[in-house]
Amino acid sequence: MPYITVKMLEGRSEDQKKALVEKVTQAVSETTGASEDKIVVFIEEMTKGHYAVGGKRLSDQ
Amino acid sequence: MPYITVKMLEGRSEDQKKALVEKVTQAVSETTGASEDKIVVFIEEMTKGHYAVGGKRLSDQ
Amino acid sequence: MPYITVKMLEGRSEDQKKALVEKVTQAVSETTGASEDKIVVFIEEMTKGHYAVGGKRLSDQ
Amino acid sequence: MPYITVKMLEGRSEDQKKALVEKVTQAVSETTGASEDKIVVFIEEMTKGHYAVGGKRLSDQ
Amino acid sequence: MPYITVKMLEGRSEDQKKALVEKVTQAVSETTGASEDKIVVFIEEMTKGHYAVGGKRLSDQ
Amino acid sequence: MPYITVKMLEGRSEDQKKALVEKVTQAVSETTGASEDKIVVFIEEMTKGHYAVGGKRLSDQ
Repeated sequence: MPYITVKMLEGRSEDQKKALVEKVTQAVSETTGASEDKIVVFIEEMTKGHYAVGGKRLSDQ
Repeated sequence: MPYITVKMLEGRSEDQKKALVEKVTQAVSETTGASEDKIVVFIEEMTKGHYAVGGKRLSDQ
Repeated sequence: MPYITVKMLEGRSEDQKKALVEKVTQAVSETTGASEDKIVVFIEEMTKGHYAVGGKRLSDQ
Repeated sequence: MPYITVKMLEGRSEDQKKALVEKVTQAVSETTGASEDKIVVFIEEMTKGHYAVGGKRLSDQ
Repeated sequence: MPYITVKMLEGRSEDQKKALVEKVTQAVSETTGASEDKIVVFIEEMTKGHYAVGGKRLSDQ
Repeated sequence: MPYITVKMLEGRSEDQKKALVEKVTQAVSETTGASEDKIVVFIEEMTKGHYAVGGKRLSDQ
């Protein structure tokens, strides 16, 4: 606790994801006071065909 | 805003998904007053092995 | 099935929410072929203090 | 109703998932009073690269 | 891990919720092999005005 | 995009939440390359009666 879910388009590299969970965990720890080892991060990736803004999927733009 | 997530079994065609996000966005805009370009739709697909009703997965029926 | 979640700021009226679930259900039924009685809609409301764009909460703007 | 989501690492067998949804459905029915045929279970699997505890992904440990 | 979310209408008693998380945790442990102390359960309650089946909210029926 | 959800126990102050969304947004921007104004953060709070580890709710400990 806390539990953080990051939902984003697929395509980030392993290095980016590694840095992402590290930096987000630090940011949450510093601002909430939770100890880092209690913080959980989930990454959820989506495709351009499953994400739409303004009624149009990214894959249709 | 609003953010809409549609969770359904995999198998719909690209044309169905394209129409889905378009029509849902219109429906949300008309009824909430949000402008269409602010509305976000996420599609989440699941397999028959990851969905159960009454304690039985669709893949086991 | 499908299951639709609409996440939005609190403040819509009961009439708006009633129309919202009705119109979204119709839109999903027409475009996916699912029968209306199988379609489930969840509404999730959030406060301005729990929603941020660009690192700033709506309540801080 | 209720709707239960089980989020876990990928790798469980079909038999484990079959038993999982059956036993969870029974547990929810017994304790909430909901009839089993109204209970829905979703399984969501994640990879070791998309799950981090303490700022470190399982795939980096 | 696993993480279980139970989404249901508000109105269950504290005793029901206490039994719910206990029995669900046991069911998940027995069928997935995860140790009980690693299993997390979240309860999410919704109102009748925020839940619709067939385009109609429970509060409108 | 990305969309970040932070789920935690209720009780943090407004200042903590303000700092939380600011620092998390910076962390996500720096590591994914997304511009800050595209990043959305949702906070979801839970009570001790709706969160259980090891089959026991925090409110029962």
